[in-house]
Order: sequence, then structure tokens, then C-alpha cells
Amino acid sequence: MRETIVRRIKDLDLKNPILIEGLPGVGHVGKLVAEHLIEELEAEKIIEIYSPHLPPQVIVLDDGTVKQVRNEIYAYHGKDRDLLLVVGDYQSATNEGHYELTGVFLDLCEEFGVERIYTLGGYGTGQFVDKPKVLGAANSLELVEEMKEFGVVFQENEPGGGIVGVSGLLVGLGRLRDIDAVCLMGTTSGYLVDPKSAQEVLRVLSKALDIEVGMQALEDRAKEMERIVGKLQEMEKAQMPFETSGEEDLRYIG
Amino acid sequence: MRETIVRRIKDLDLKNPILIEGLPGVGHVGKLVAEHLIEELEAEKIIEIYSPHLPPQVIVLDDGTVKQVRNEIYAYHGKDRDLLLVVGDYQSATNEGHYELTGVFLDLCEEFGVERIYTLGGYGTGQFVDKPKVLGAANSLELVEEMKEFGVVFQENEPGGGIVGVSGLLVGLGRLRDIDAVCLMGTTSGYLVDPKSAQEVLRVLSKALDIEVGMQALEDRAKEMERIVGKLQEMEKAQMPFETSGEEDLRYIG
Amino acid sequence: MRETIVRRIKDLDLKNPILIEGLPGVGHVGKLVAEHLIEELEAEKIIEIYSPHLPPQVIVLDDGTVKQVRNEIYAYHGKDRDLLLVVGDYQSATNEGHYELTGVFLDLCEEFGVERIYTLGGYGTGQFVDKPKVLGAANSLELVEEMKEFGVVFQENEPGGGIVGVSGLLVGLGRLRDIDAVCLMGTTSGYLVDPKSAQEVLRVLSKALDIEVGMQALEDRAKEMERIVGKLQEMEKAQMPFETSGEEDLRYIG
Amino acid sequence: MRETIVRRIKDLDLKNPILIEGLPGVGHVGKLVAEHLIEELEAEKIIEIYSPHLPPQVIVLDDGTVKQVRNEIYAYHGKDRDLLLVVGDYQSATNEGHYELTGVFLDLCEEFGVERIYTLGGYGTGQFVDKPKVLGAANSLELVEEMKEFGVVFQENEPGGGIVGVSGLLVGLGRLRDIDAVCLMGTTSGYLVDPKSAQEVLRVLSKALDIEVGMQALEDRAKEMERIVGKLQEMEKAQMPFETSGEEDLRYIG
Repeated sequence: MRETIVRRIKDLDLKNPILIEGLPGVGHVGKLVAEHLIEELEAEKIIEIYSPHLPPQVIVLDDGTVKQVRNEIYAYHGKDRDLLLVVGDYQSATNEGHYELTGVFLDLCEEFGVERIYTLGGYGTGQFVDKPKVLGAANSLELVEEMKEFGVVFQENEPGGGIVGVSGLLVGLGRLRDIDAVCLMGTTSGYLVDPKSAQEVLRVLSKALDIEVGMQALEDRAKEMERIVGKLQEMEKAQMPFETSGEEDLRYIG
Repeated sequence: MRETIVRRIKDLDLKNPILIEGLPGVGHVGKLVAEHLIEELEAEKIIEIYSPHLPPQVIVLDDGTVKQVRNEIYAYHGKDRDLLLVVGDYQSATNEGHYELTGVFLDLCEEFGVERIYTLGGYGTGQFVDKPKVLGAANSLELVEEMKEFGVVFQENEPGGGIVGVSGLLVGLGRLRDIDAVCLMGTTSGYLVDPKSAQEVLRVLSKALDIEVGMQALEDRAKEMERIVGKLQEMEKAQMPFETSGEEDLRYIG
Repeated sequence: MRETIVRRIKDLDLKNPILIEGLPGVGHVGKLVAEHLIEELEAEKIIEIYSPHLPPQVIVLDDGTVKQVRNEIYAYHGKDRDLLLVVGDYQSATNEGHYELTGVFLDLCEEFGVERIYTLGGYGTGQFVDKPKVLGAANSLELVEEMKEFGVVFQENEPGGGIVGVSGLLVGLGRLRDIDAVCLMGTTSGYLVDPKSAQEVLRVLSKALDIEVGMQALEDRAKEMERIVGKLQEMEKAQMPFETSGEEDLRYIG
Repeated sequence: MRETIVRRIKDLDLKNPILIEGLPGVGHVGKLVAEHLIEELEAEKIIEIYSPHLPPQVIVLDDGTVKQVRNEIYAYHGKDRDLLLVVGDYQSATNEGHYELTGVFLDLCEEFGVERIYTLGGYGTGQFVDKPKVLGAANSLELVEEMKEFGVVFQENEPGGGIVGVSGLLVGLGRLRDIDAVCLMGTTSGYLVDPKSAQEVLRVLSKALDIEVGMQALEDRAKEMERIVGKLQEMEKAQMPFETSGEEDLRYIG
């Protein structure tokens, strides 16, 4: 296996589909949103993507079976338009792989007639974020203006380091194929899986898509995570009362 | 040489062959088992595999000649079914190479009509293991159930980090080619070559294969290794009597 | 997208074009000169180059839109001859990519009939440079002699480590295609973006090209940078009065 | 330029040629011998090899011109048989590149009818070596025996780590093409360029080739290096009289 393999699970006719990408990244914000959408909308898997650019690894499931590391595409039939949701265990382990997998996703977009892409991610601030915002970056000025109406914040020089990985490339290379694309990034500490930030992104996204999605599952995870963070902060304070506020030293867990 | 080369040493008709992979890995458990089987069963080499993904290296043998680093496949004619054994000096040095070499092995499986694969390895626990267990991960639920009967342990979330390398990929990608595959992992410290763990894996494997294999050579190596470990622990205690139990600080030797 | 893409923005007839390369590098000297030339000469973009060897990234612009990381070629119509200017956000992230992108540039040189290449860069000395010099390295002895007349310094064993990246390869591999090429390197500390060094390179280059270019913008940036350096040096002295002269410990900023 | 380029400088008929490889490596022993042979025998360059697996770099020569990093093959017309000498600025910067360049060299061997290869290198002992030996590793038992007659030492388990790079691969992969090959390694500290070790290798090699080669140039370099080593050892002793013998702490210079 030297090439990326696109494995069709189910053939579907799609009407005006929009692609939403939520692969793992900062705070797993994009992943949380996309997986939540798949569950709430009961989307069905139509494609599996295997690639030598993904880590050479299987994941062991609870029942003792394994799952080959891969990316997956789910489809949801909406009233006016359908959704395609890209999720996965990992992003590419190589720079070139990010380009290759983005190319695969864009080829599929052209095949299915996708005219708009939302890529979802987190924007690490290095500090705990009380009220997450949703930052945006789009591949056309019209899209920037449209997104502002849904509460997306466009801030000069943010993110300063650009957007790395598939979430960035789909927006950048999407332009070359005349596909409108915008990246929505929930602000997050970057240290922990952040369902609260994911809720904010989902709020904006469901307005933009004009769909209603239950939030309970994300809400529950957010509360659980808050409890964990609270405990961690207490432990930090107990251990080093005079040194730090305990807010910037947590490891990445979740 | 820019491509992986499959060099046929001998042409053979094989009946219902099962593939067993024992390339180097944690505690060299898989390698010990596969090489022991080759010796005990007097299997013969039928294929050599050279690849630019293996380290660019030759090994110098005792007689002054060299051996190009490679993977090898041996064949054994059993009563009801034949065995194919994959061994080698190294696994791939690159991520992509793991995929490529797994692809080569699976191509050969299809060519020879292999319907089941056993991949063998060690599962590093970070502590010396008195009574090694054999953990498993399979690519079908039926296989999980079948393996439990031979004493294989399927434990939730173990291995938590998944299975990396050819041992994992043969199981994961084997599924895509409709080949049943299971990875058997002997628990081991991860610090030393572990013939004792290899014995446990061999015990389970020979039950599963319904063959009888002498254990003496592995037994002898296990005893020798125990002596070495004992000495190392004494040395550790002598050097730092109050600091550690001496059990977790040994380097990887063997 | 697994291959480098050459995207033509505009078709142009070019007369006797000279190629000038100013991709990012030490002190961003080459980049400053090339971008300054594009602005002053009002050169127009004719080609965009996208490659999986560039970082997998988009840059977020001030208006909220993104720019896919790329290399670009601008054209300027001169009286007697035209100029092609190569600029970009990054150089290749891989060794092989440097060769590939250099190959792409040289293919375009052959297509446009380019007979001479100037590559521009900085030469890091590790110390603040009061009066930058312009060091050279060319791919023919005649070109070495010609460049000496414009004040380019050819110094034995400088740069001792050779010239790495596209600036070096265009000169080295250009020879194999019978294209004269010279690398002009402004001496610079290597710690900061250095518009003063860029001015020196531009002075030499405009003599060699026999064109006149306004220097004001570079002049202004040089003055601003001098103020920053002055402040940094003061801060250094204030913090560690007895330890260092403060001249060798500045981080790379700009 | 995405492929390795073999550039023919001169077409020659060769009779029974032997290939000698002396690319940079431990103590630059192989490089010193091969370059010495080229000079003494007045061999002429017939091939240049450029590759994206070599560092993306040019070397700046004393006259201000550059030399694209490459490997080169020189030819020498002997009485009974000709010699091909492989030298270069660098070995491959990637694992795969070692395989690719070895493949290129072996293709040329087949084209020119080469039936024997000598690869030359150093074997780092980590300590200053008063009387260098020449260790060997060959790809046939006959060749081992033949080489012993010329004073080559074949020592069990040496080199323990195998032979890495082109010097190893030519011997290992040469076997697959039915070309006899032996690697000759002069023992050397591994810290310094070692012309004394090179002399020993040359002595053995010229016996094996049955040619006479002046040694003066290597002799001179060896004496110069001895002076440098002597001074370094004095400096070491002066600086840390009680700590070390000064023999194991020298940096790699030459």
C-alpha cells in the first residue's frame, strides 16, 4: 500500500452538499463538533480513507477488535441541502500528506458538487478561556462578511502563525478550485480537550447552516471537563501556593 | 534501487497456508517466537524482501561475510496446512515504509491464498513481569472469541496506544482484504529481550495452530536471561541501596 | 495534490529576461530586496507555484481572508530587457523540495529564455555589521570578474559552509543548463531582519542591472530597525551589565 | 529536478574495470584514499551524479565559483585492467537516498562489466589508534580468504553495528547482482581526519590491485595531522591536568 485509498462504503446522490471538516487538532474542538453532529444528525458513513501518510497504527477497541487508523466521511440528508462530515483518528503525520489528503477531499468535493466548505478547529491562547469566541478566516471577502453576521470574529493578525494542516489547506487550496471555504476556530487554552469551545463553534455553525442541533451531549462533557479543570487547579494551588496561579501549567489531557 | 524488491528463492505449492509475522519489536518477543519456530520446524526460506525503507545497512556475520538488511519469509509444510513465517533484521525505518511492506506481505498472502494471519509481539509494561500474559487484538469478533479459548486475554483499553508497525497494520489492513488476523502480544518489561514472554506466546500459538513445538531452546535462553537480570538487580542494589528497587532502571539489553 | 503546481496568472512575451530570486533566508535580505523591487518597479504577478514541499499552511491576511503558502513570479518590462522576480512566503520544508522547486524555476528559465540569474541572500556573521558588504559566488569565472566591477566581494572560503537552499541550487544547477548565475549575499548578523544589508545588495544589483530604483522604503525600514536594535542593546546592558556586550545575544526578530 | 541525474562527461571503453568507492565517512579514510589514488594515477573524470538526496547545497571554491554538491566517477587505464573511482562531497542525506545512489552505482557497474568492488572507509574505535589495522567484510567467503592474504583482518562481531551507507550497501546489494565486493575499513579514532589510517588502507588496496602508488602526499598529511594531534593533547593536558588523559575528548576536525 503506497497510495492513499478511497474506499466507498455506500453510494449516495447528494443535493447541494456542504462539506464540514473536523479532524483532530487544538483542543479537539473541530473533532468534538463534527462527531457531535454525526451523532445528533444520525449521519451515515459513506467513505473511508486510508493513507500511508497516517500513522502506521491500529486502535484497539473495547471489544478486542482493531480499527485501522483512517479518515472517514459521513453524509446527512437535510431538507434543502445535504452535509458531508469529515472526521478521523489522526491528521497526516507528514507535511506532504496534509497536501495529499486535502487533495483527496477536494477531489471528492468536486465529484459531489460541493460549493462550500467549513473547516473546524481550535485556536490555542495559552490561557484558560472563560467565554470562548469563534475566530474565522475565509477564502473570499464575501464569505468574511457573511460569517460576521453569525458572530464570527475576524481579528487582524489572528491567528498570527497562520492555520496549519487540513483545516488551513482546504480553505487555501479550495480557492484554486473555486470552492468557498471558511475556517471556524473556537478559542481554547490548548491544554485540554475543550467541549465548551466546541459548543460555541457549533452555535455559530448551526446558525450558518440554518439547522437545529441538540447541545446536551456537548453540554454534559463541558461540565465534566469543568470539574476536572477545577480539581487540577486546586491541586496546582496546593502544591505550589506561591509560584503560579495554576492556570498556565496544566498538561494536555482530556 | 528505489522500489521494494521481492526476491523469490524457491517456488512452492502451499496448502491453506497461515502467515505468522515475528519482526523485531518490544522485547523481541515476536522475533524470538518466529525464529524459534523456523528452527524447530526446519522451515525453509522461500522469499527475501529488500527495501529502501529498511535501514541502509549490512550486518557483518561471524565468518567475515555480510548480510544485506532484509525481511525474509520461510515456509513449513504441515500435515493439514502450511505455515509462512515472516522474520527480519529490522522493521521499516519510515512510517510510509510500514504501509508499503505490509502491502507487500498482504499481496503475498493473496497470492498464496492465506486466510489467517498471526502477528506476534511484546507489550511493554515498564515493570518486570513474573508471569507473562498473552494479550490479543483481532480484526473480527469471531476471532476474538476463538482466541479467548486458547488463553488469549482481551483487555479493555489495552494496548492503550494502539499497535504500531507491521504487527498492527497486518491486522488492520488485512480486514480490507478479507483476511482474518490477530495480534498476540506477550507482556514484558520492555527493557530486555524476553524469551520467557516468548514462551507464553508460543504456548498459545501452538495451541491455536494445533502443532507441537519443542520449547527447550527458548527455555534455555529464558534461564540465561534470568541469571543476567538477577545480576543486574544485584548491581543496582549495590550501587544505590536506598534509592530504587532496582526494577525499573535497567537499560535495554539482550 | 501530490505534485508541485505551476499556475499561470498572465501570459506575457518577455524579452531577454533576467531572473532575480529573493526567497526568505538569513536576515530576510533577499526577500527585502526582491519585494522592494516588485513594489518600486510595479512588477506584475504572472505565476503562482504551489507545492507539497512548502509548509502545509495558510497565512491569514488583515481582511480576514487567507493566502495559501506559495512562491510567486513577478514580471517587469524594462527598456532593453525584462526582469522576472521570484518571491514567496517560505522556501521548501524538505531537502528534496529545494531540488524540485529549483528544477521548476530552471524549467521556467528555459521556457522564457533566461540567460542570467541573480539569487539574493544574507550571509550571517554572528555579529552586528556596521557596514554590510556584498559577498558573491558565481557559476563561471567570467561572471566572478564581471561582478567584482560592481563591488561584489569574492573571499576565499566564504561562505565556508557553502550556500544552502534555492539561492545555492539555482547557481549550481543553473550551470548544467548553461545559464549564468551569481548569488549576492549581504553580510548581516543573522539575528534580525536586515534592511540595511538589503540596501547594499540592492545598490550592487541595480548597478549590475543598469536600472535606477528608489531606496526610500528600505532606508525607512533600516532606520526603524536601527532604533529597535538600539533599544534592545540598552535593555541588554541594563539587565546584565557585567556579563556581555549585549551584541551577540539578540533573538531573531523583525 | 526530482530524479537522480547521471551526467556523462566522457565516453570510454573500459577493460575489466574494478570499482573503488571512497565517499566521505568516518575519519574521511575512504575519501582520502580514493582522492589520493585519483591524483597519483591521474585518473580522469567520466561521470557526475546529481541527486535530490544529496544536501541542497553548493560549495564555494577559492576562485569565487561554486560547485554543485555531487558524486563523481573517475577512470584510470591500467595495464591489465581499468579502475573506476567513486568520490564525492557528501553521501545521501536520506536513508532512501543511500539505496537509490547505490542502485545507480551498481547499474553503472553492470554497464561497464565491473566484477569486483572495493569500498573504503574508517572504523571508529573511539580512541587514538597508534597502529591502524584494516578490517574487512566481504560478500563471499572466497573473497574473505583472498583478502586475508593481503593483511585484511576479519574479526568476529566487528563492526558490531554493521556497515551503514553506500560502503555497506554496495557490498550487500552487490551480491544480488553477482558482483564480488569487499569493504576495507581502516581503524581510526573517529574524531579526526586520519591520513595515517588511510595509508594502511592504501597499502592493502594496492597489494590487492597489484599496482604501485606513491604515498608521499598521504605521508605528509599524516605528519601534519600528528603535529596537530600532539598540540591538541598538550592543550588538553594543560587545561585539565588531573581529569583526563586528553585522549578521548578531541572534537572532530581535519
